[in-house]
Amino acid sequence: MNTTGIMSQHLRLHGAEIIARYAEFLRFPNVTSDSENIRRFAQFICGQYSEDDVRMELLELPGANPIVYGELESPNASRTIVLYAHYDAAAVEESEWSSTTPWDPALFSGRFDEGGVRLPWPDEGTPIDPEWRIYARAAADDKVSIFAMLEALRAIIELELQRTSNIIFFFDGEEEVSSENLVQFMKANRKRLGMGDVWLFCDGPMHPSRHPTLYFGARGYTGVDITVFGANRDLHSGHYGNWAPNPALELARLLSSMKDPEGNVLIEGFYDLITPLSDAERLAIDRIPPIDELLSEELELHDTEGQNQTYHERMLLPSLNIRGLESASVGESARNIIPKEATVSIDMRLVKDIDPETLLDAVEAHVRKQGFYILRNDPSSEIRRRHSRIAKIVRRPSDRAARTRMDDPHAIDVLQTLEHLFPDTSVAAVPTLGGTLPLYLICELFEKPLIILPFSNHDNNQHAPDENLRIGNLWYAIDVMSAILTMSP
Amino acid sequence: MNTTGIMSQHLRLHGAEIIARYAEFLRFPNVTSDSENIRRFAQFICGQYSEDDVRMELLELPGANPIVYGELESPNASRTIVLYAHYDAAAVEESEWSSTTPWDPALFSGRFDEGGVRLPWPDEGTPIDPEWRIYARAAADDKVSIFAMLEALRAIIELELQRTSNIIFFFDGEEEVSSENLVQFMKANRKRLGMGDVWLFCDGPMHPSRHPTLYFGARGYTGVDITVFGANRDLHSGHYGNWAPNPALELARLLSSMKDPEGNVLIEGFYDLITPLSDAERLAIDRIPPIDELLSEELELHDTEGQNQTYHERMLLPSLNIRGLESASVGESARNIIPKEATVSIDMRLVKDIDPETLLDAVEAHVRKQGFYILRNDPSSEIRRRHSRIAKIVRRPSDRAARTRMDDPHAIDVLQTLEHLFPDTSVAAVPTLGGTLPLYLICELFEKPLIILPFSNHDNNQHAPDENLRIGNLWYAIDVMSAILTMSP
Repeated sequence: MNTTGIMSQHLRLHGAEIIARYAEFLRFPNVTSDSENIRRFAQFICGQYSEDDVRMELLELPGANPIVYGELESPNASRTIVLYAHYDAAAVEESEWSSTTPWDPALFSGRFDEGGVRLPWPDEGTPIDPEWRIYARAAADDKVSIFAMLEALRAIIELELQRTSNIIFFFDGEEEVSSENLVQFMKANRKRLGMGDVWLFCDGPMHPSRHPTLYFGARGYTGVDITVFGANRDLHSGHYGNWAPNPALELARLLSSMKDPEGNVLIEGFYDLITPLSDAERLAIDRIPPIDELLSEELELHDTEGQNQTYHERMLLPSLNIRGLESASVGESARNIIPKEATVSIDMRLVKDIDPETLLDAVEAHVRKQGFYILRNDPSSEIRRRHSRIAKIVRRPSDRAARTRMDDPHAIDVLQTLEHLFPDTSVAAVPTLGGTLPLYLICELFEKPLIILPFSNHDNNQHAPDENLRIGNLWYAIDVMSAILTMSP
Repeated sequence: MNTTGIMSQHLRLHGAEIIARYAEFLRFPNVTSDSENIRRFAQFICGQYSEDDVRMELLELPGANPIVYGELESPNASRTIVLYAHYDAAAVEESEWSSTTPWDPALFSGRFDEGGVRLPWPDEGTPIDPEWRIYARAAADDKVSIFAMLEALRAIIELELQRTSNIIFFFDGEEEVSSENLVQFMKANRKRLGMGDVWLFCDGPMHPSRHPTLYFGARGYTGVDITVFGANRDLHSGHYGNWAPNPALELARLLSSMKDPEGNVLIEGFYDLITPLSDAERLAIDRIPPIDELLSEELELHDTEGQNQTYHERMLLPSLNIRGLESASVGESARNIIPKEATVSIDMRLVKDIDPETLLDAVEAHVRKQGFYILRNDPSSEIRRRHSRIAKIVRRPSDRAARTRMDDPHAIDVLQTLEHLFPDTSVAAVPTLGGTLPLYLICELFEKPLIILPFSNHDNNQHAPDENLRIGNLWYAIDVMSAILTMSP
């Protein structure tokens, strides 16, 4: 996508100084656990927003990073929009960064692993290529959202445009550690936040098609760790191999029973809890730019799970995935033993209305049906002697799925704003993200529509070394935020 | 078992001084990698044996620990016996030893983890309980063999008995690191060693039934590492879960296909290469004291692989065992990803006449039949895109199995010597050890019968902290060695 019309001209005129201002943002270290720097950055954001007349404050809870909170009224506003973003960043392994460091932003002519070269910061008037990339921790996740909102406010003032909505800014400082205190913060500020008519959740990468993107929900999450037991100690594989049972093999057999070769889950009841798609959702899916071939090529896959189903159809189903598997060791440290135990860690993604505990019950019923005695702790000697197959199952914390109706009037407003802004390209309006975000906490508390509005290029190296933002995406973010703030009432 | 007759009296008379002499042996550090101390100990052994008129020398190869070699002729000898043992010890983690240290032997009234208490070294005449244990590294593995041979020589002189065989002593200094130079040493001394009519391999624990023990062979060894590939990088399990294939699941399915729930290998041809048991072997198996229930109780197992087959029957079959399994991580370091690959390490134990490469070919044919494209290195992008299932298979080094005929005349002599020595108990004459020893190297080179004659209690904590030898087993070792050196021609 490209920025259009009046904002396009603004960005052409002020590109160099906007990039310089963003570099200043990026120099603030903001890893969640770095309390001192996090607070410095929070205060800096407050200062910046205050200059644009936003009433800023830090919401506090003991032991928590503050929420950076702001309110901005607009004359004749017909609605209140809550803009969510987060100002904390994922941890960094500084030594793994390639040609720059996490808090020292650097400009490149493209991805440097694809031949991009380092550029000097541009002077005023230098033509700026949207394919340039700016490398720094949090450049994509999620400083870009907070910065774009600020630049949009400035542009609106400078261009003498009219804001049409009241805005509540709500910037989380603990998103990278599961937003542990988010619910408590929201409950403590329930009245003010309850004024919001629609939430825009500004985080995450854009659709891989690079089209303007809206996600209307996110899958939920649950999981189990299963450990299968053999003898009460590792055994010499020569002296006992062929005689003592091997728990790794028993676990392999259990896992094989859970999915068919096409990737469909075989656990009884697994697909029974799904809410059918609405007409609007079904229509939307057909309109999303296809990405199956694009992703298969990028990931070098010959084929994928779920024959005859597209990526977006698969994301509307619950998933069951082996995220880790371990029994003794492989490689240099492998020993000639029959391991005493084998462990799998499974994560499951939930779709709308699936109760995590009901799904976990179905998983356990399946394990039991495969002949396993289930317990919550390591087995006693007595239990070991009494049962042939023993599985310890530990349920992990769950998040429910959330999905906003695509025919909600506010949802339609936002979608149309994007469609008008980019008349030459289709909008990727996706019923749900495959991943999980704490959206359901917000949806449950306020019962308002919530839409994810991401700005970053999807190849941004989020959470990894060499995180980067494409300059075109920075322009897109500012352009879209300006349009949202001024969208027709 | 108990020592009997004339030796019993000797041990009663001299028990305290024998224990004191063994303690002196145990104070020599002899970890394989500790070249300086290993050589000190080798020279000490030479000195001790020389006192009993054995012609000792150190056989040398560049960079290797020497072989401690000795020859002893006997008047009117009807045969030459080669006595193999090893004078090196497994590495020690000194901090993990409980109530003593590896090179400071200590006497206890029993296993100290079962209530045994520390005892002073006994004075002459103190009654000595065979249940006492002496704790030190190498007390069981394998200083006991070398010490027992020496004490047997002394006892024979003192008791004025007649040796009936010529003896070659051959003490390996690198057994704990796979006897890397053994073949070269044997080839360099082929002529002298070729004089042996029968080899006694004195190492390892006795049969768990605690009966006098002979093993007539050992299983061979081979193995493969198999890595199954998914996408070209770890994927976010939310954004791709349910769509991108999971290599850990594919590996689980592959492993499940290799064995049935009873533990029988399903790979075509796996059992076709077995040499049928001889009558003598079949008879011997029926006579071995049963240990299935004993082991099941010790290891807290409800049941075992191979229904209706005993432990000893199972050891006469080749095995296929998962020794390690890994895909990404479990536990604290688990992440919400679809792992890019999953690896299993498999070891297989071979029985007589099975060619390792033929068996590995059968395994690969099975993997191919499950739909995998097999390669030796990591796949290229092109290969990834072209094949749905990809497995990298790396074959590991192999050892062949060896099994001496139980109706060989020398084998019968040794067996009868034990039977005469312990008339009140049956001898555990076992066709094969489950584990692997480099016997086939010796058997191939000299084409002479080889019998394993172990002396240590089976619960000796071999290779682990708190290694120990039961005093009754020390008496047994000296008694048996004396009987072998004087057995009827």
